[in-house]
Amino acid sequence: MREFELIRNIFQASTMASIEGRGDLLLGIGDDCAQVQIPAGQTLVFSMDTLVEGRHFPFDADPVDIGYRAVATCVSDLAAMGAKPAFFTLGLTLPESDPQWLAGLAQGMAELAEPIGLVLLGGDTTRGALTITLQVHGYVEAEQTPKRSGAKQGDDIYVTGLLGDAAAAVPIMTGELQVTNERFDYFYERFWRPTPRLIAGMALKRCVSSMMDISDGLAQDLQHILTASGVGARLDLASLPVSEPLKQWQPDHAYTLALTGGDDYELCFTAPVAMRDEIQLITQTLHLPCTRIGEITASGFEVEGYQGDLQGWQHF
Amino acid sequence: MREFELIRNIFQASTMASIEGRGDLLLGIGDDCAQVQIPAGQTLVFSMDTLVEGRHFPFDADPVDIGYRAVATCVSDLAAMGAKPAFFTLGLTLPESDPQWLAGLAQGMAELAEPIGLVLLGGDTTRGALTITLQVHGYVEAEQTPKRSGAKQGDDIYVTGLLGDAAAAVPIMTGELQVTNERFDYFYERFWRPTPRLIAGMALKRCVSSMMDISDGLAQDLQHILTASGVGARLDLASLPVSEPLKQWQPDHAYTLALTGGDDYELCFTAPVAMRDEIQLITQTLHLPCTRIGEITASGFEVEGYQGDLQGWQHF
Repeated sequence: MREFELIRNIFQASTMASIEGRGDLLLGIGDDCAQVQIPAGQTLVFSMDTLVEGRHFPFDADPVDIGYRAVATCVSDLAAMGAKPAFFTLGLTLPESDPQWLAGLAQGMAELAEPIGLVLLGGDTTRGALTITLQVHGYVEAEQTPKRSGAKQGDDIYVTGLLGDAAAAVPIMTGELQVTNERFDYFYERFWRPTPRLIAGMALKRCVSSMMDISDGLAQDLQHILTASGVGARLDLASLPVSEPLKQWQPDHAYTLALTGGDDYELCFTAPVAMRDEIQLITQTLHLPCTRIGEITASGFEVEGYQGDLQGWQHF
Repeated sequence: MREFELIRNIFQASTMASIEGRGDLLLGIGDDCAQVQIPAGQTLVFSMDTLVEGRHFPFDADPVDIGYRAVATCVSDLAAMGAKPAFFTLGLTLPESDPQWLAGLAQGMAELAEPIGLVLLGGDTTRGALTITLQVHGYVEAEQTPKRSGAKQGDDIYVTGLLGDAAAAVPIMTGELQVTNERFDYFYERFWRPTPRLIAGMALKRCVSSMMDISDGLAQDLQHILTASGVGARLDLASLPVSEPLKQWQPDHAYTLALTGGDDYELCFTAPVAMRDEIQLITQTLHLPCTRIGEITASGFEVEGYQGDLQGWQHF
């Protein structure tokens, strides 16, 4: 099958959102380039992620899950910028051309992409070891873009959602650990179906002093904010939001996983103390799970109640 | 080495063009997303290409060559849209973290990217089989964008540059064929250092009825224009622009290679007969090699002087 026909046939037959009715998307798959007219007053933000089989997801995983999670993890970067999702491109390297597998991948991608208005607008397919590169693009006003560098001493530190479940799920997903069916189902969902915090990002961007998404673990990712902002932090381990299933299954490790485990795809942000009421109002109104976990200090990084190494996941 | 630090350290130390002084590039490597303010009156065009070792370039090739050619082949898609290069992202999957190899890759990329104002603005690095995914982005006015679908019966068909050298070079590059040093040097350069026809694309976009770049071979790529435009074509094999070294080395196959071989990265475009003088004036003024090779017909695809199958390179 010829280049692009593979993507075109499989992905356009799926329920992927159409470019029809989208005035910003001028040209899609079919020319040398796709073409976009960025809406007036908006800037373009984008992030590229590469996922390799056996490294970022287990071998022989369900293609629907792979597709959903690939888009979710990449879209999480748009959430961290407070951006509205717009379109994405897909670089797909495959050991063989398997229409059923591809249809599954397309379905999983569409399950996340379509409801949030994220349209597949181009890409490339090649033969080789299974590798998925996604670039997601969104729109945000220049002056309302949260960055990593704005945290100030005295700011509160918050996270969305629950931490640690996805990291705890990894040995279950790879088959290394056997658990009950009920436990399997809960952690399966938590690993494969992260919720990119798009609404939280868009709703909170005016209140925050810095924001990022947690992909390599809270401890490691928060340190990116600290470094970029030239500040320190003090966290309270017991304040981290941890799920009941994780506490029940791993009472001794739950909070450590929440602090150092990866793959959460929740948002971590800082905000001035004066913003507490507004943040509470927004999160309550929109039913956003959000927890205050510590404060920004002048320097250093302490976690009360934790005596371990503060390292996250290393790609190399 | 942590994610992005690999790219940041190696690529920012190279001669890659800086984002300093570029008002359109608001955020680069370091936040969850890069951020761009598209210049007023411009649209964004972009193209993604994935290159796999052993498939798109030989094993153990010089990383400087790999880097140069990767950017060149991807930028060729911008040329086909008449676009001005702006920025690119790099998804790099590597079997190991080899600083010397990476420095070579960065050098090769910068050799092409820097003079044309194409800035590296983000990406991802992962471990795995050597796979390079590039997304290049450029700017073009919406109403001046050449497409594949505009060719009309009676239009002239043109190509830039010389065709067939890169396809002839493949068995030399893989070591399958031994040739004289002089021949090796010529074809080595022709394979590894294609010239994306950016100036031709930008200068000619007002004159053309359709345009695309030739990556899979003239015959196959021209058929994309014919299909998109709902027309046919008649070419004259003897009119195809073929280099003297190719004619001398392969007198019996030179024109067939020019017609069906891939990897040329020249432009193929169509234009109304009334545009002949203007096109000649532009190409002469700018010293652009450009050859009229046939005409658009109502239907079918004939090549006078050729009795073979009209197939290009198939990725699957």
